[in-house]
Amino acid sequence: MRIAVDAMGGDRAPCEVVKGTIDAAKVYPRDEFILVGDETAIKLELGAAGARKRNLRIIHAPEMVGMEESPVKALRSKQGTSIAVAIETIAKGEADAVVSAGHTGATVAAACLGLKRLKGCVRPGIAVCLPTLEDRFIVICDAGANIAAKPIHLFQYGVMARVFAANVLEVEDPSIGLLNVGTEEGKGTDLVKEAYNLLKDSSLNFIGNMEGRDIATGAADICVCEGFVGNIILKLSEGLAMSLMKTIGEECTKGPWTQLGLALSKPALRSIKDRIDFSEYGGAPLLGIDGVIIVSHGSSNAKAITSAIRESLKFVSSDVNRKIEAELAKHARHPATHAAE
Amino acid sequence: MRIAVDAMGGDRAPCEVVKGTIDAAKVYPRDEFILVGDETAIKLELGAAGARKRNLRIIHAPEMVGMEESPVKALRSKQGTSIAVAIETIAKGEADAVVSAGHTGATVAAACLGLKRLKGCVRPGIAVCLPTLEDRFIVICDAGANIAAKPIHLFQYGVMARVFAANVLEVEDPSIGLLNVGTEEGKGTDLVKEAYNLLKDSSLNFIGNMEGRDIATGAADICVCEGFVGNIILKLSEGLAMSLMKTIGEECTKGPWTQLGLALSKPALRSIKDRIDFSEYGGAPLLGIDGVIIVSHGSSNAKAITSAIRESLKFVSSDVNRKIEAELAKHARHPATHAAE
Repeated sequence: MRIAVDAMGGDRAPCEVVKGTIDAAKVYPRDEFILVGDETAIKLELGAAGARKRNLRIIHAPEMVGMEESPVKALRSKQGTSIAVAIETIAKGEADAVVSAGHTGATVAAACLGLKRLKGCVRPGIAVCLPTLEDRFIVICDAGANIAAKPIHLFQYGVMARVFAANVLEVEDPSIGLLNVGTEEGKGTDLVKEAYNLLKDSSLNFIGNMEGRDIATGAADICVCEGFVGNIILKLSEGLAMSLMKTIGEECTKGPWTQLGLALSKPALRSIKDRIDFSEYGGAPLLGIDGVIIVSHGSSNAKAITSAIRESLKFVSSDVNRKIEAELAKHARHPATHAAE
Repeated sequence: MRIAVDAMGGDRAPCEVVKGTIDAAKVYPRDEFILVGDETAIKLELGAAGARKRNLRIIHAPEMVGMEESPVKALRSKQGTSIAVAIETIAKGEADAVVSAGHTGATVAAACLGLKRLKGCVRPGIAVCLPTLEDRFIVICDAGANIAAKPIHLFQYGVMARVFAANVLEVEDPSIGLLNVGTEEGKGTDLVKEAYNLLKDSSLNFIGNMEGRDIATGAADICVCEGFVGNIILKLSEGLAMSLMKTIGEECTKGPWTQLGLALSKPALRSIKDRIDFSEYGGAPLLGIDGVIIVSHGSSNAKAITSAIRESLKFVSSDVNRKIEAELAKHARHPATHAAE
């Protein structure tokens, strides 16, 4: 398999991105890795790491999309941004997947501009694995690719995220919950009410509505929601978890006994911190695009990049996109789905 | 002042609600407290607590709205639910405020059916104080009274929550953030883009867009959002905080050293737990209704009820509603506000 990595994307690019790719190239010697970005900068990083891997090559891209830029504007005005060139490698058949820790909006925009949607998919969505502290994940879909969704989009997020969860995360018969303000049927906005009916009338493993608190406990394997809400959930969870760990650290240094207590509890607290460190996790696939696009956390370190690459390999080798198309076709035959389209 | 308390509302009603009201009656001997609900049940609780307070009386209400009921249906089909009778005491001029830990939807519906809106208010919203771990609160408005908002609603939530924060929470010149998927201007759905313009063109202390992660750090004093999102935020924050504290407890019992560590850190961890224990906090006002309605957490204990009553007294004595009307009138004269109405 051939994985293109956006070497310029992310807060710690190119250094950590290149390192993570080198590590992946070592672990997967039969696969090929393409670092896309400023050739000089990448070569410097490769030199610093002393890496001369046969399965590692560079494609030069002179520009990049900055975190503060409007993605669509940047992609239109700049020729040869690293993310657009990376996406192009898929379009040209030179790569099977793209991994990027850069501007999520730019990755989504570049993918939508440069590649086709999967057959039957109305709108792509991002599926993010959120740690739940119950030793399991919950997949949030959509996490922000499509901020204003329609009922059919939410329904298809359920279909697509299920294929991802079953094949890449290896969850058996993944259950789907619909994020809402209450668990009872008939709750919520018109959007969620209509999505509820589509999901209920399908053969998907739909558990009904779920509330905000059910995300933390992992009440379902997949939580379907509009991109606006998904984005808020993700950032709030991350912010809360980080603040709480910081506060625990501060509280525990307030007296000598609590300081000792903290020192003794450190392994336990570190294990929790690792569990909720979002930058440690691999990546989030952009589902619904005919190409494998893995969005990695902006603050990804080398380990997170390697792990996102591992996920992209699994996504490609499991042929997830063809399975998504088959599932979309299966559920598109459902009368309720047709009615909503 | 005269405070009506919905004695049947909440997971621990009537026991904890009655206890909390008795405590308030002791602390505020010059104010009058009306317990609304099943007379026999309330009398039993009063008897158990040995309370014979002069400033405590009962108004009988034979019915109640269950947590699983559709609030509007229940209010229409049942005559004399405790929340409707409590709201009636305001309409009849027998009470200045209502405190309820019951079904939030029922409280909102009963208030909207039984009382007028404040002059100039387009749609009422709930303002909830969320602890931020930075030793300060953030007021989320709307937390779920109005799940599908329009730009003018979001704008007015900012106006109303500011009056509440300044007068009841005693925050100086409270700042307002608009919840969005990014901090840059121009981000988000049409709803938030339009609300952004209304807030930006006003004389309110508007700091711009805020993201999910900014809630946890308390980047603004007030976070304005649609009720659907506000409800999710609230329940997610609570769920996450509780799961995390539970996990810390579990992790720390895994070995003898970490057990000792936990024992030593206990005061620190308990202080954090108290800070994030949502049921300990007072109540959330329903802003925009001509009457003081304080919604308390469903799992409120006696302490939380007393604290919600304290808040209602402060709300009434600060004449917050008249101040909200004055502010709404002031900002209604703003051309941008008119354009959006």
